This record gives sequence, C-alpha cells and structure tokens, in this order.
Amino acid sequence: MGPPKKRIAFTADRPTGCLHLGHYIGSLLSRIDLQAQYESFVMIADTQALTDNAGDPGKVIRNVHEVCKDYLAIGIDPAKTTIFVQSCVPELFELTSYYMNLITVARLERNPTVKAEIQQKGFSESVPAGFLCYPVSQTADITAFKAELIPVGEDQLPLIEITNEIVRRFNRTYNTEVLLEATAVLSSVQRLVGIDGKEKAGKSLNNAVFLSDSEETIREKIFSMYTDPDHIKVSDPGKIEGNVVFTYLDAFHKDKEELESLKSQYQRGGLGDTVLKDLLNGTLQNLLRPIREKRASISVKDIDDILWAGSEKAQKIACETLREVRNAIGINYTHAIR
Amino acid sequence: MGPPKKRIAFTADRPTGCLHLGHYIGSLLSRIDLQAQYESFVMIADTQALTDNAGDPGKVIRNVHEVCKDYLAIGIDPAKTTIFVQSCVPELFELTSYYMNLITVARLERNPTVKAEIQQKGFSESVPAGFLCYPVSQTADITAFKAELIPVGEDQLPLIEITNEIVRRFNRTYNTEVLLEATAVLSSVQRLVGIDGKEKAGKSLNNAVFLSDSEETIREKIFSMYTDPDHIKVSDPGKIEGNVVFTYLDAFHKDKEELESLKSQYQRGGLGDTVLKDLLNGTLQNLLRPIREKRASISVKDIDDILWAGSEKAQKIACETLREVRNAIGINYTHAIR
Repeated sequence: MGPPKKRIAFTADRPTGCLHLGHYIGSLLSRIDLQAQYESFVMIADTQALTDNAGDPGKVIRNVHEVCKDYLAIGIDPAKTTIFVQSCVPELFELTSYYMNLITVARLERNPTVKAEIQQKGFSESVPAGFLCYPVSQTADITAFKAELIPVGEDQLPLIEITNEIVRRFNRTYNTEVLLEATAVLSSVQRLVGIDGKEKAGKSLNNAVFLSDSEETIREKIFSMYTDPDHIKVSDPGKIEGNVVFTYLDAFHKDKEELESLKSQYQRGGLGDTVLKDLLNGTLQNLLRPIREKRASISVKDIDDILWAGSEKAQKIACETLREVRNAIGINYTHAIR
Repeated sequence: MGPPKKRIAFTADRPTGCLHLGHYIGSLLSRIDLQAQYESFVMIADTQALTDNAGDPGKVIRNVHEVCKDYLAIGIDPAKTTIFVQSCVPELFELTSYYMNLITVARLERNPTVKAEIQQKGFSESVPAGFLCYPVSQTADITAFKAELIPVGEDQLPLIEITNEIVRRFNRTYNTEVLLEATAVLSSVQRLVGIDGKEKAGKSLNNAVFLSDSEETIREKIFSMYTDPDHIKVSDPGKIEGNVVFTYLDAFHKDKEELESLKSQYQRGGLGDTVLKDLLNGTLQNLLRPIREKRASISVKDIDDILWAGSEKAQKIACETLREVRNAIGINYTHAIR
C-alpha cells in the first residue's frame, strides 16, 4: 500500500486577456496554497473561451501564453501543478458529448450564472449553442481529472451544481461510481472593483491593473483611480465607501493599523488623495515588481515546454477516465474496433 | 495529375434496431448505386443514437453489429464503401464543439425535424441537450469527410440546411474554404408503412419486416397485414388505398402489369386476400432469402475486421479535416504543444 492518494483540486481561466489584480487576490493566490496541499490542475480554457469568442479566436490564442506566463510569475509551480491547455486534451470533447445526453436544455437555460452572462454579453436571442452548453464541457473538465475541490467565486456555484447533477445522473444511469462529485471551495475574498469603481474590471474596459503592467502604467492607473468626488480640498472630510484607493489598500496594504489611522484622518479631513495614492503605488509596485521581473525572465520555449508536458500528463489522465466512462456506458465493443 | 477526384456521398443510420424493408427501399438500395458512382461513406451513428437512448446504451451497442451485417447482406461492398462507427472517430466530437459556437440555441429549436421528433418521443420539456444539438454533430459527420451528396428523406431536409448554414458561417468567419456545402439527394421512394398500416414502422412497434426475419416470421407478418376491413367475402369489392398488401406489392413486385390486373380484379370483387398475400409472400421470400443467407454467412470477426478497417480509414480523413479546421480557426499553437 502506497501513501494515501492526494485529493485533486482543479481551477481554470478563459484566456481572453492577461490576468489582473482581481484574479490575483480572488483566485491566483489561493492556488499557491492549493498546490502545497493537493494535487493541482490548472487549465487554460481556450475551447471554452471560444464559446463566446468564435469570431475572434486570435484574442483567445494569443492569450494562452500570456496567462501561462502570469501563472508562473505569481508562483504556480509546474512541478506541483499541472498546467495544461484545454484543446490539447481532446478526450474532453468526447466526455462532453456523453454528458450532453444527461441534462436537459431547460435545465441549462435555468442556470443563473449563464443567464446573467447571456444578459451581460447582450446575446439576447442569439445565444450560441456552445455557450449555453459550456457548463457541460466544464463538467467534462472537472470529472476527467476526478477533481473534488473546485475553488470558485459565489457566482459560479450554480455551475458546480450542474456538474454534480450530471455526475449523479451518470453514476445512477450506468450503475457505476466512476465519476466523483465536486465540492466548491468558496473564496472569502470579495470581487475587486475596477479602478473606475465599476464592479467589472478587465481588458476591454481598460480599468484593471494587470500583473504585466509596467511601473509607469501602474502609477498612471493608480493616479486615475476613482476616490471621493466631493473631497476637493485636502482639508475636506472624505468618504471611504466607494473610494477605490481605500478598496485597493484594504486588499493589498499589509499594515492594517496604519490603514485604519489613515481612514480616520481621511474622514475627518486633512489627508490628500495624493498621499494615499503614493502609499498604494508603493504597495503595488513592491507586489508587482518581482512578478513582472519573473515574467520577463520566462521564454516562449519555457512556456511551450511547460504547456506541452502539462497537456501530455493531463491527456493521459483524461484518457484513462474516458476509458472508464466508455466502459461504464458499454461503448467499448471488442478490442478490435477500439 | 491523377484522375479527377470522385465526389463523396455520405449516409448514416442510428443503430437502434435491425434494418427493415422500409430502410431497404427508402435508402439502402440507393447506396448500391451510390457506391458505383461516388466515393461512399456509411456511418453507424452510435453516438447520435445515444442522444435519445442514454438510458439504454445496450440497445445501441448490440445493434452496431446487426446494422453492419444488414449492410453487407444487401450488397454494400466494403471495398467501395467505407463503413465505420461514429464513436470510433473521436475527431467528430472536437469538430462538433467548434461548430456549436456558430449556431444559436434558437435556431436549433426552430428546426422542424427535431421539433417533430421531440413531440414524437414525448420529451416535452425534458429535451436532452445532446438531442437538441444532434444536427450540429451531424454537421461534423458530413463535413469531416467533405461529403457533398447526402441521400435523405424529405423530412431530413432541414438538417441539411443547418449543415450548410454552419458551413457558410465557418468559412466566412475564418475566411476559408475548408468546409464544403452538402447537397441533399432526395429519395423518390415514399416511406413504407408498417404492416399494420401505421406510418411509422420499427422494432418497438413490431410492425416491420426485417431483413433478418426468418421465412416463417415473414409469412406470419404478411398474413397479419392490414388490408380492407370491409372486404369480408372473396366476392366483395375491395379497396386498394390503405391496403398494406398492395402498398408492399407496389414497392416490391416486379411485374407491374400483373399487379394492375390484380388491382382491377380486387376492386371489382372476386379476389381473396389470401391469394394476394401468397403472391406477396413469394415476392418477399425471393427478395429476402439471399439476404438472409448472406447475413448468416458473415462472422463476428468479419464484421470486426470491416468496422475496424473502415473506422481507421475514416479517422485518418477526419483527422486531416480537423487539422484544416484548427488551422483555419488558428488553434494550432506551435508544433510543440500539439
């Protein structure tokens, strides 16, 4: 008997842009902890990104390397975490196809996460079939690796519910225990707002601080941050709530005591935005400099090697799960035809 | 320069039962002509059959061999026609996934063929996602082989429309000519009714004459055929319309002159059902005896060898098309990662 098998954690990102500070505190940091405790898989979900970017595949494909660079730069260690590209594991397509028969269209249409995204993306009546069905392909991604721990934001809980519904239906229908139910591990971190105070931050809105931003860009973004529009003179009392500089200081400034005293001073009046922005700039430059330097040291060949090795490993595992799934369904025929 | 490339014809059957006389005159016979003129592919659509048989995969899997036996018994020649199994060509799953992003859910829901099937199968609000989307996987099947000629019944025309919509959208979106539009080749033969006169004939209704039926079963089925319920005494005038024995004689009896004279006699009165049924029995026994004998001569190993070789050939072609499709989209990365 060997040592007890480590449980498996699975996360993924759609490569539609570089990763930013919101990803960093919301999800990336926790993966460093995960890889220490669990066998970890991190998937670059290029195929899933195509479900709403079919017309702009270049954006997706360019960002596969960028996202991988971000992973390595923040400390995801390919020796501990299998980093791989979704489209390089074609077994996932076949698993998806079997799972598609175990869930109804109506159930997919009731999914609140996808419903909200459909509204947000303005699809209205033109929802691509692939987009409606991406939770099924996500089920394939998770189950292929027998992952049990899925770190997610609260808005993604309905996706894990769908995964588990399909898992239970599969196991019941084919009288098997091949597939494992997954547990959502909720992030305790609140979603980080954009530098303009908008809830959604990202490349298209140009309102996020990216892990790859230059020193100057970071400074510019911080100095353009939304604060308190009524705080005009230094002596005016200022508001903390909705003040993006404080939101970011709360998220990234280590000295919480100093921060509390600055908040009091700001509310009383007598503290200028520039002082706070300088403080935040120092904090973020210290955080992002080593990440940027690590990023710059990674060659295209490094990335290729890591993605190749990760995808090869992921494919072997997915292939084995697919074999089990086919056996459970009974589509295995004789050895002669597959 | 070699000889001009033959155009490609593609047909498929869902293996949910043995093939019957309706398949024979509606589709199977025409494939003998097709294989003489075109490069032909015939697919046993096990994966598609699972879209509405996920709970009974055994039915599908058992019938893969039976359907292949039927093909060989009626004269589909593996030297001219590539016979293969859908699930043995996993490239089709990946193609499906890319095409799913190029068609909307609303468009799939408007498809009259699928709408009719949903009603017929009593799915009501519980349509499996895989079933709604099977026309997309059908598009993958057709385009993977660059098939241009698709023999179909009239009820399947909307499926070819969907195929061509996806083909045009793909070629336009990715600025390519990789995919070919398909032409539906309409069968001139009317759908053959069941022996009970019902429009739909098949195994579950036990109202079809199967190519594999024994001599005795054929005779029994013919003698139970629906004729004219008002034609009680031999001397009574009888109706031709809706009289299944005449429908089958029209479809299978070679001597049309004899048949016309029998019809006149029947309508006038003085011709008994037994005489007609004996005539039909002779006709069908003559047709089906050599098919049944050929069927009995085929070993499991023959079938395995044919399906293996056909699936291997089909996979090579699908793999090449998938490569072209990935190149057109641009998901080819460096050689290093796939």
